[in-house]
Amino acid sequence: MEKPSIPQGTRDFGPAQVARRQHIFGVIRRTFELFGYAPLETPTLENLSVLTGKYGDEGDQLLYKVLNSGNFLVKERRGEITPLVTAEDLETGPRAVLPKIAEKGLRYDLTVPFARYVAMNRGTLTFPFRRYQMQPVWRADKPQRGRYREFWQCDADVVGTTSLLCEAEIVLMMARVLSELGLDDFTIKINHRGVLRNVYQALGGEGQETDLFVAIDKLDKIGREGVSRELLAKGFTEPVLDTLFDLLAVAGTFEEKLDRLLAGFVTAGVEPDGQRPTADSADDDEPAHYRGLSELGQVHALLAASGFRQFERLEFDPTLARGLSYYTGCIFEVKINNVPGMGSVSGGGRYDNLTGAFGLPGVPGVGFSFGVDRLYDCLETLDLFVGAGETPTRVLLTHFDAASGRAALPLLAELRQAGIPAELYPDASKLQKQFKYADAKGIPLVLILGPEELAAGVAKIKILQSGEEKTLPLAEVVAALTV
Amino acid sequence: MEKPSIPQGTRDFGPAQVARRQHIFGVIRRTFELFGYAPLETPTLENLSVLTGKYGDEGDQLLYKVLNSGNFLVKERRGEITPLVTAEDLETGPRAVLPKIAEKGLRYDLTVPFARYVAMNRGTLTFPFRRYQMQPVWRADKPQRGRYREFWQCDADVVGTTSLLCEAEIVLMMARVLSELGLDDFTIKINHRGVLRNVYQALGGEGQETDLFVAIDKLDKIGREGVSRELLAKGFTEPVLDTLFDLLAVAGTFEEKLDRLLAGFVTAGVEPDGQRPTADSADDDEPAHYRGLSELGQVHALLAASGFRQFERLEFDPTLARGLSYYTGCIFEVKINNVPGMGSVSGGGRYDNLTGAFGLPGVPGVGFSFGVDRLYDCLETLDLFVGAGETPTRVLLTHFDAASGRAALPLLAELRQAGIPAELYPDASKLQKQFKYADAKGIPLVLILGPEELAAGVAKIKILQSGEEKTLPLAEVVAALTV
Repeated sequence: MEKPSIPQGTRDFGPAQVARRQHIFGVIRRTFELFGYAPLETPTLENLSVLTGKYGDEGDQLLYKVLNSGNFLVKERRGEITPLVTAEDLETGPRAVLPKIAEKGLRYDLTVPFARYVAMNRGTLTFPFRRYQMQPVWRADKPQRGRYREFWQCDADVVGTTSLLCEAEIVLMMARVLSELGLDDFTIKINHRGVLRNVYQALGGEGQETDLFVAIDKLDKIGREGVSRELLAKGFTEPVLDTLFDLLAVAGTFEEKLDRLLAGFVTAGVEPDGQRPTADSADDDEPAHYRGLSELGQVHALLAASGFRQFERLEFDPTLARGLSYYTGCIFEVKINNVPGMGSVSGGGRYDNLTGAFGLPGVPGVGFSFGVDRLYDCLETLDLFVGAGETPTRVLLTHFDAASGRAALPLLAELRQAGIPAELYPDASKLQKQFKYADAKGIPLVLILGPEELAAGVAKIKILQSGEEKTLPLAEVVAALTV
Repeated sequence: MEKPSIPQGTRDFGPAQVARRQHIFGVIRRTFELFGYAPLETPTLENLSVLTGKYGDEGDQLLYKVLNSGNFLVKERRGEITPLVTAEDLETGPRAVLPKIAEKGLRYDLTVPFARYVAMNRGTLTFPFRRYQMQPVWRADKPQRGRYREFWQCDADVVGTTSLLCEAEIVLMMARVLSELGLDDFTIKINHRGVLRNVYQALGGEGQETDLFVAIDKLDKIGREGVSRELLAKGFTEPVLDTLFDLLAVAGTFEEKLDRLLAGFVTAGVEPDGQRPTADSADDDEPAHYRGLSELGQVHALLAASGFRQFERLEFDPTLARGLSYYTGCIFEVKINNVPGMGSVSGGGRYDNLTGAFGLPGVPGVGFSFGVDRLYDCLETLDLFVGAGETPTRVLLTHFDAASGRAALPLLAELRQAGIPAELYPDASKLQKQFKYADAKGIPLVLILGPEELAAGVAKIKILQSGEEKTLPLAEVVAALTV
């Protein structure tokens, strides 16, 4: 018989792991709900017509496709069966065969299903719509350390508003979740696509904005030299690159950086693209010549007004680019500084058009996501998990023989009634075996209820970690354990 | 553009539905944990070698198969590409094509993955092992009312013990979950495969036990007449059927039925198959000539000793058969009496050999399952859901203009700090629109913070349902709302 196994890139989560993961999900869920985000769950299976073409060519390759059920090779109509896949299709390859045998695929991220949901329910939803979603996604990627084929995303998005309050609240939620998890040494990096555009304009270039974004995005990994090499190859010149790195290397506090970039843009003659804020917007004093800088300033001011006290952990990083994604406004990324090499544990940004691909244009929004698997690894690396054992059981009642086992049942019921997870060892085995069981499972307390104890109307309580023992009247046990 | 849709038999769960489902999951999870069951989660994708052949031919048909990634039509080895699927395979059909293009499938139930997990981790698990698992499963079934292609199961099993305490605790857990959900009008039916076997022996038949079980299982649906017709066709005779229905129609209390069936078996000369209980077992006084009756009596006695007070809702039903499943001991099934036509919301039983198919024989256990979708439908039918709205938000702060919006931020932060989900309406829209928003989302309280209120250092609190208004000093708002 073949040994059973699970597919590469997937995982079983045993009791201790589930308990730890539930701790993380719980902190994120509570934070999302405190900020008024409502839960949404979408199906694992989506129609391939919904998924295909939304993640680029590479994404389409990485989609898991599900075979049509029944005889997927033929078409049946009015009792007549005709072949669906032909020998010619086999020659042509998956491109010809796939659409005939697979209509459905597995969820690849939480954003496209959310957009699909908003478009399908446009008539009944009330906007602004704040939703969060915590579900697994699947990618047929090469498995490697820290990269799985089944992994969890926790997204929160608000759509139907352009208010910068939402950006400020994303920073508040990120900081709250990380602090509650005990991951205090974090940096939230923030930038704005408008700033990147202004930087590009300051270089006097045209039409190569995307090349610039793609290169800058790699600054972290390949350094200034690598980025320079890439941009030189694309036709950028040395003096242009000097201007670029001068602008990007701007130093100081959040607000100093804003001021210095503003001066840089003015000096370079960048055309202002910002509108003066209307009376409704959060800050009337902002000069707001440039939309990116102005909005970053407003987010900063909203955070200050909200009593945010961790500005030393919020960094305006003009080199943050977030790849080729659909972001149009503020962008975010979070790193845990004392877990090197981990990559970002959270990220997000503002977009103009969530549901355009589904026939509903003009739905702007802003959202972000936590990577649960990376948060888990950070907490494990820093040894920040507490008390998650192999069982929820807090008390094991010993089982001497049939009579004393049965005599333990009322106490067992009472413990559970008091909300204390408890077990009676199911069989009247040797006491040593029962203690070994409690030890292996990490059950902290053992209640010894032998014939002697029962005759005296008492129970012996043993704290496994310390070895401490205490004898108590049966009637006082539950009260003693609930204190 | 095609309108986006979701696959037949799958569902989106919007905010109110998720909140209600979380309520059900929460009650089940807390109960499982109080009884010492530890959480386990297995991957959505399992190898088809693990799944195939475990659910019968029909089950194999209903498995969702996932296409191998990349070019699934060819094999690549040392850079050489050879076709995998041939025109001949197309002629032969799915039987020939499937094994070449799909290695993985979607989880079909929670029992096989659990068995696979136990077999894979035999070396490190401590037995008895109590696990619960609450995850979706997928079946390519014809969708119809109440039957979905993606649905949730909540299983609890304990393996590595034959103790009847576990059976008694299943009854306690079933009763606890249903009572906590407010589904008080339930019946837990219990039977024992040994009783069914003894009934068959009482008829003097041989070799047709399965025919009898299959027919009896339908008694609920097709009645005595239907069952008779089916059994007559299988060669059972009229007098035999009379004996059968006399035995099955046994009346009285749980214990009276046990006694009367015992008398019936003795009269019919059924060979005793029960062992006298050992000193370890829970009841030394039981006559225990027949294992099935004896064990049911012991479970009843263990429940009485545990202080179980709902015996009027526990019915010994000798006609309960639970289909062709692998059960060998006690079997259970639960119905909600005041929701007619719903089918069972929970069921389970004891089995001798969980992991035999994975090379680990001799692992006995007992388990049961809740059907979350049916529980949901029962709660909805009986209008037992309370307070699940479209948002977790309890308080909406109004947003008059930029200045008063910003002035509201410290109060917003304070509310959240106190654990009260709250939102500031993101834009300075018309007040009427903001109230409409609160109303549509079911937000119970609106805090009006206009320039006048701010100047006076107060907030107006409006309770939407009653229309009641109250004005409070800003500093007292949070305290007033946390009481």
